[in-house]
Amino acid sequence: MTKTNAGRFFEDYAPGQVIHHAVPRTIKMGERALYHALYPARHALYSSDQFAQACGLPFSPLDDMIAFHVVFGKTVPDVSLNAVANLGYAEGRWLVPVWPGDTLRSVSEVIGVKENSNGKTGVVWVRTRGLNQHNEEVLSYVRWVMVRKRDASSAAPETVIPELAKVVDPSDLVLPKGLHFDNYDFTLAGEAHRWDDYDVGEKIDHVDGVTVEEAEHMMATRLWQNTAKVHFDATVRPDGSRLIYGGHVISLARTLSFNGLANAQMVVALNGGAHVNPCTSGMTVRAWSEVLDKAETSVPSVGALRLRLVATTGAPFALRGEDGKYLPEVLLDLDYWALIPR
Amino acid sequence: MTKTNAGRFFEDYAPGQVIHHAVPRTIKMGERALYHALYPARHALYSSDQFAQACGLPFSPLDDMIAFHVVFGKTVPDVSLNAVANLGYAEGRWLVPVWPGDTLRSVSEVIGVKENSNGKTGVVWVRTRGLNQHNEEVLSYVRWVMVRKRDASSAAPETVIPELAKVVDPSDLVLPKGLHFDNYDFTLAGEAHRWDDYDVGEKIDHVDGVTVEEAEHMMATRLWQNTAKVHFDATVRPDGSRLIYGGHVISLARTLSFNGLANAQMVVALNGGAHVNPCTSGMTVRAWSEVLDKAETSVPSVGALRLRLVATTGAPFALRGEDGKYLPEVLLDLDYWALIPR
Amino acid sequence: MTKTNAGRFFEDYAPGQVIHHAVPRTIKMGERALYHALYPARHALYSSDQFAQACGLPFSPLDDMIAFHVVFGKTVPDVSLNAVANLGYAEGRWLVPVWPGDTLRSVSEVIGVKENSNGKTGVVWVRTRGLNQHNEEVLSYVRWVMVRKRDASSAAPETVIPELAKVVDPSDLVLPKGLHFDNYDFTLAGEAHRWDDYDVGEKIDHVDGVTVEEAEHMMATRLWQNTAKVHFDATVRPDGSRLIYGGHVISLARTLSFNGLANAQMVVALNGGAHVNPCTSGMTVRAWSEVLDKAETSVPSVGALRLRLVATTGAPFALRGEDGKYLPEVLLDLDYWALIPR
Repeated sequence: MTKTNAGRFFEDYAPGQVIHHAVPRTIKMGERALYHALYPARHALYSSDQFAQACGLPFSPLDDMIAFHVVFGKTVPDVSLNAVANLGYAEGRWLVPVWPGDTLRSVSEVIGVKENSNGKTGVVWVRTRGLNQHNEEVLSYVRWVMVRKRDASSAAPETVIPELAKVVDPSDLVLPKGLHFDNYDFTLAGEAHRWDDYDVGEKIDHVDGVTVEEAEHMMATRLWQNTAKVHFDATVRPDGSRLIYGGHVISLARTLSFNGLANAQMVVALNGGAHVNPCTSGMTVRAWSEVLDKAETSVPSVGALRLRLVATTGAPFALRGEDGKYLPEVLLDLDYWALIPR
Repeated sequence: MTKTNAGRFFEDYAPGQVIHHAVPRTIKMGERALYHALYPARHALYSSDQFAQACGLPFSPLDDMIAFHVVFGKTVPDVSLNAVANLGYAEGRWLVPVWPGDTLRSVSEVIGVKENSNGKTGVVWVRTRGLNQHNEEVLSYVRWVMVRKRDASSAAPETVIPELAKVVDPSDLVLPKGLHFDNYDFTLAGEAHRWDDYDVGEKIDHVDGVTVEEAEHMMATRLWQNTAKVHFDATVRPDGSRLIYGGHVISLARTLSFNGLANAQMVVALNGGAHVNPCTSGMTVRAWSEVLDKAETSVPSVGALRLRLVATTGAPFALRGEDGKYLPEVLLDLDYWALIPR
Repeated sequence: MTKTNAGRFFEDYAPGQVIHHAVPRTIKMGERALYHALYPARHALYSSDQFAQACGLPFSPLDDMIAFHVVFGKTVPDVSLNAVANLGYAEGRWLVPVWPGDTLRSVSEVIGVKENSNGKTGVVWVRTRGLNQHNEEVLSYVRWVMVRKRDASSAAPETVIPELAKVVDPSDLVLPKGLHFDNYDFTLAGEAHRWDDYDVGEKIDHVDGVTVEEAEHMMATRLWQNTAKVHFDATVRPDGSRLIYGGHVISLARTLSFNGLANAQMVVALNGGAHVNPCTSGMTVRAWSEVLDKAETSVPSVGALRLRLVATTGAPFALRGEDGKYLPEVLLDLDYWALIPR
């Protein structure tokens, strides 16, 4: 009897299945210090207790992307250990802040399956919820992955494709309890630009770049207890390079976007996202954003911006070629809602 | 008068000597976050306060190997700065959990000396105890090292070789106060295998591998305030490579062993261990285990497994050649007791 | 309208200007754990709460250089983003310890400007103060940088050169409230040398060396929220190397100086300092010190040593060539006051 987890194959998923993922994790300020050492994170709400208190919060929560990565990492042994590709995200919402000392665990429900025509792989959709020690849902998102079949000759399951919103409706955005930007200090936040200063269609080059190192992406990925071999074991891929966890690129791009979006403090929804090309060590990652939409929220001082965030090793604003396909230098195309003072 | 510490030489040790090692250290959750960033640590008892509470502990203790490394690191300036080799461990026992906020210091007693026949080096045995701020012994172990003589012409001391147990007797294993596995959640722990599911002689391939980076092993080794030059200074060794601290390999192998031994939650004894071959940056480290023995403990729900843990850059289960010598790809052969639910 | 910060140019500074730097930061034990992973930090006062309590403090403060780096880092976007060179430091004083949980922000006043004769650059002097959440000044120092002009044809401002003390007068050194070394444990501190054991003119080779890695200096520099591109983006400099933040070299040298200056516990003043040559990844950094002066303090058990601290990739004690210029292997020449038991 083998004791090690070989991961699930396509045949192992069926709509309605609920998977309780292993290894709950208590996260505190040590994880935050590491996050700020691994990424150029500077949003003031996640840096200063006093700044957060001036925004109506009891103190500074853990970065929204820490919550995402911790919840996501737990799903890897059950969802993506035999994944060929991470295909997409939808309907992601941050629901309750994660405070230092909280313990997070993850639960996923299989909401769709579709075998591919080659008979060797299939697509699995899961809705993953992150829960804290009070069983409050802190985060919820859908992702779908292409997974290998254990046996190409096994029969295809009935196809179930979930209906997913293209964009989280702004009326469904959840603001942390108490949040307001009535006394927002733009000087301490680092920039003067308010919600009103951003126009739909506007593009922002975030200027800075980071050349990625192996030790950094591995430390980050391990911290989230993500166990996918390709991130750690240089012998897995034929070219001897480790594939960098897509979430590392998300956090790099999001934190680089401070320069131009310093006041887009909190990520509250993930509308979609694609890891367009693989990222490996030695690449210099840059970021640019496009304002896709704007919305008011239930709190008058708080506006929402829908932003496209692109990570690239190339020039800003280039995204797709004339053939409509992503350019080879583009690493990430993310679509999210962030909260910003009005 | 020179102010710097040149380390002790073989002549400086005599049985009965007690050495109070310098630099006590208060360790908290920051050290744990780093441990979990540097190693693929996933044992639930060291990850979640709630999981630990369900096991009868007040909250999640710091990883057993953090305790070991902190206690060990302090001994380096006094014991192994001029060591030629770290020869072995014996009679290691974890006695009291280390809680975030505890302050550890180390005290060693010289319990044996034996000059080598070449007249240039000798073997020194020390029993090291780790103490917390309440002067409770948290950890105790024997190690022996080969140390250079200051002066080859100095007279050999009387040989004293301590009698050491080959294995810590299971009746001497100390369980943390309150520990039980009555309400153990195997789903959250990550695997279903209990004490009963493991057979003596069974071998487990832990499957995963980690390609080691300079920045990671140096950060780890510094965190334990281990000052041995070979780990940090690439100019020390003729080949320009830094020698990785043996404890880094122990922690790598132990955390990799989660995959197949997820429920072997707590290390409670170190029966022995050999750093068989040097580890350097760029190597891909894998691990396999062998169940050497099983024992009941004073708590009915808690069993003990005696495990061989092997770190290797090669294939699983290969250990020694036909000549009885360790194979060149084997890095570590460790023998320990761990606690697991029955 | 561009949203990104292009940094200030020489024309943007005028004496009397006060700049409130962005992104206050709450720092706790996670930052300290990282500091001790990134540097071989071993001064007992910053390692153990019990050791600090025996010295009259409530518990162990955050390392003096953590305070410096956090305060310094915030000034980068406003002071040195377009700097050609960091020219010097003066009148640096640590005024109040930084405790885990404190929130730091930085305020700078422009105290001098002088256009260079080439008309393309100028020198700007700022006095920077670090403030905690109680608006107490925790740190104050002057630094001056050479900054590019936006437009070479713009008129030169009236030259204002501040008068700066060459050395902080020992009577101006501020000791942390309650500090004494009456019950100082030299064994736990790691060395026996007191204030009396050091002579003016004495030089100490700190023996150890560290070969620097990209991942480490980037993590350190990010942790201080220092945003200068040259530290992170390998494409900025023609030779493809990242320039290591000068403060990283300061911390490396200061922590290496433990070996010979283990009792020089607290840095209380920065008299001056020059980043003599650039440091890049792969260099092996060593350190040596020279005792420049000695002074008593207001507390009888506490003495002060004025120390030159040199970081070098070469042999100890070599500093300048026959032409009076710094040798190419010298990286840093720092002049500071530290507190040591009498």
